[in-house]
Amino acid sequence: MNPLYAQMGTTIFEAMSARARETGAINLGQGFADGRGPEAVLQAAAHAVLEKSNQYPPMAGLPELRHAVADHYVRHQGLDLTPEEVIVTSGATEALAAALFALIEPGDEVLLFQPLYDAYVPLVRQAGGVPRFIRLEPPHWRIDAAALEAAVTPRTRLLLLNNPLNPAATMASAEDLAMLADFCVAHDLVAICDEVWEHVTFDGARHLPLIGFPGMRERTVKIGSAGKIFALTGFKVGWMCAAPPLARVLSRAHQFLTFTTPPNLQWAVVEGLTTQDAWVQDARHRFQAGRDRLSAGLSAAGLAVLPSTATYFLSVDLAASGIALDDLGFCDRLIDAGVVAIPVSAFYAEAPVNHVVRFCFVKEDATLDAAIARIAAAR
Amino acid sequence: MNPLYAQMGTTIFEAMSARARETGAINLGQGFADGRGPEAVLQAAAHAVLEKSNQYPPMAGLPELRHAVADHYVRHQGLDLTPEEVIVTSGATEALAAALFALIEPGDEVLLFQPLYDAYVPLVRQAGGVPRFIRLEPPHWRIDAAALEAAVTPRTRLLLLNNPLNPAATMASAEDLAMLADFCVAHDLVAICDEVWEHVTFDGARHLPLIGFPGMRERTVKIGSAGKIFALTGFKVGWMCAAPPLARVLSRAHQFLTFTTPPNLQWAVVEGLTTQDAWVQDARHRFQAGRDRLSAGLSAAGLAVLPSTATYFLSVDLAASGIALDDLGFCDRLIDAGVVAIPVSAFYAEAPVNHVVRFCFVKEDATLDAAIARIAAAR
Ligand SMILES: CSCCC(=O)C(=O)O
Ligand SMILES: CSCCC(=O)C(=O)O
Repeated sequence: MNPLYAQMGTTIFEAMSARARETGAINLGQGFADGRGPEAVLQAAAHAVLEKSNQYPPMAGLPELRHAVADHYVRHQGLDLTPEEVIVTSGATEALAAALFALIEPGDEVLLFQPLYDAYVPLVRQAGGVPRFIRLEPPHWRIDAAALEAAVTPRTRLLLLNNPLNPAATMASAEDLAMLADFCVAHDLVAICDEVWEHVTFDGARHLPLIGFPGMRERTVKIGSAGKIFALTGFKVGWMCAAPPLARVLSRAHQFLTFTTPPNLQWAVVEGLTTQDAWVQDARHRFQAGRDRLSAGLSAAGLAVLPSTATYFLSVDLAASGIALDDLGFCDRLIDAGVVAIPVSAFYAEAPVNHVVRFCFVKEDATLDAAIARIAAAR
Repeated sequence: MNPLYAQMGTTIFEAMSARARETGAINLGQGFADGRGPEAVLQAAAHAVLEKSNQYPPMAGLPELRHAVADHYVRHQGLDLTPEEVIVTSGATEALAAALFALIEPGDEVLLFQPLYDAYVPLVRQAGGVPRFIRLEPPHWRIDAAALEAAVTPRTRLLLLNNPLNPAATMASAEDLAMLADFCVAHDLVAICDEVWEHVTFDGARHLPLIGFPGMRERTVKIGSAGKIFALTGFKVGWMCAAPPLARVLSRAHQFLTFTTPPNLQWAVVEGLTTQDAWVQDARHRFQAGRDRLSAGLSAAGLAVLPSTATYFLSVDLAASGIALDDLGFCDRLIDAGVVAIPVSAFYAEAPVNHVVRFCFVKEDATLDAAIARIAAAR
């Protein structure tokens, strides 16, 4: 057996959802939305499974979807992507795996920001890479140029950036991104940008893709997710975008991970990307209202809520709330009270921040209200 | 970049399908069926996407699907699998990747039979494993005990078996399997059994799963594919079954490859496994008729057709047909004539058999007839 996997636990998201299933607690852990998603997308999926081919589509994705993804980024982010630079994947996790396997040569060092999505480190290690961590801290989770320079070595080849950043719910500023771009160029790094939260942004703030910054066009892999854009996390349709020399190698790793992605769901995402901009805009407002509702409720209960500019999540600082328990202890107490949340220490591979707990707010008002009441009673 | 992927070509299946798309040639290359698949399965997929959750299902699969898979093997193969031993994956390729990543510790040797599916060797190498090949040859592609013993060393940990064997279209006999089981037990090997063709068998012959042989229950990973069972290759719903100590480690690798599989397609496969046994039986007869039609047509054209007991494929031995070209040359000639096939040398990592070409026969009669006419004219 591979000791990497033999010694590994279950991902925190599944572990916590399993506890919600077992206990009947309200699940504000794993990030998925209440609601049906855009009706036209569901109808397109149903129509395609009945009326179009359900055989292997082209390996890199339906041409129509590759075109729709490229066009989407041209329209929304001013990028000059072409369909040939888009590879459709079975969700963003597969894109991450393919990108890391394709681009890491054993021994390469990879810069990672903590807190991080729990797939990153195992995938880097499975590829033979050496993770180098840059630690971000609440309340601002700010990327510091000095910390970057301290972490880079002559063996560094890749930087893996999650922006907007889950679970911090922050978004890198134009200045941060310009600094990161200069840094990647100066050290000849390729950036893998996990931008699955790019459309889930609030208060009018807009996500800026790193690939659009000077010097990054040829050295960036941009990863996106239809599941997150359309709040259909079970669709498992994602993509990775990169200039042709990178895309060619990415496709080689992809071909032996899942090979292809179900065509009916690809057709549904074509429908979504080409007709559902208004739904996405509207969802942003609904999610923002959910954020505000949960934030107000938890604040009224005396909890110190950290700002959330993006993602499905907000966090509470236990220390600043006068709660003596660590995040794991508080999450256990919350489960007893009937609410599942995610301890932010699970997003650290070393030196965890363990006084912050994350809550998902893309839920019905009644669900949020019930959760608030339970959390308030338990705090 | 990882030299493994940087130096890799496009998988032969996609490369050949791309040539079919470009030239309009009849595609008898990549294995997928004409026809819609079982209507009830399509309807269930459409119904589920409209009426059930499209959010993350449990990581190991819907409980209903895990139950249906276990029950399917109890009924059809007399196995005693439990639902807890089934992990749903995004196609069999993902199951293969997860199993190899989970079970190979860098430096472990893995026994592989050539011809082999082209994902096997890159996945073994990416996991840090060392492939050891056992070479099978036409016309009988027989596994020889002496060759097994010659290939095993104290570092051997795994044996990867594709049975029924693509592209050879053979099925291991009970004697072969008993010998393989004894061999695995004697050398303390785990067997990864890619049995995606288990239901596509002809002439009344029935597939026997290696996991059912003495000593194998605790040391086998059995991989299956709904796409192959229901001739819906775009569904990308597969699974891996193993005893709990193995399944636990497999699930760890799975969680960071795709994490989950679209629930609507999982519901559709539940429908298929619980209500479509007659469709599967009927498909077997239709596919057998396609085999017989293509075999008769190619034989009449003077080609030496090798026996096909299983899979979607039959092969032609060019040398025995008096054709001087090698398989690549003959496939090029066939594309000029308007038919895409697969050169069997693509299934060898070393010492290729290069006088055999594979054809997919699960096509409409008219398609097969047109292909036969073109092949006959080109030979
Ligand atoms: C793949 S499960 C994790 C979903 C998610 O993005 C989160 O909860 O952070
Ligand atoms: C994943 S594409 C290969 C399909 C197949 O099984 C074959 O053609 O051999």
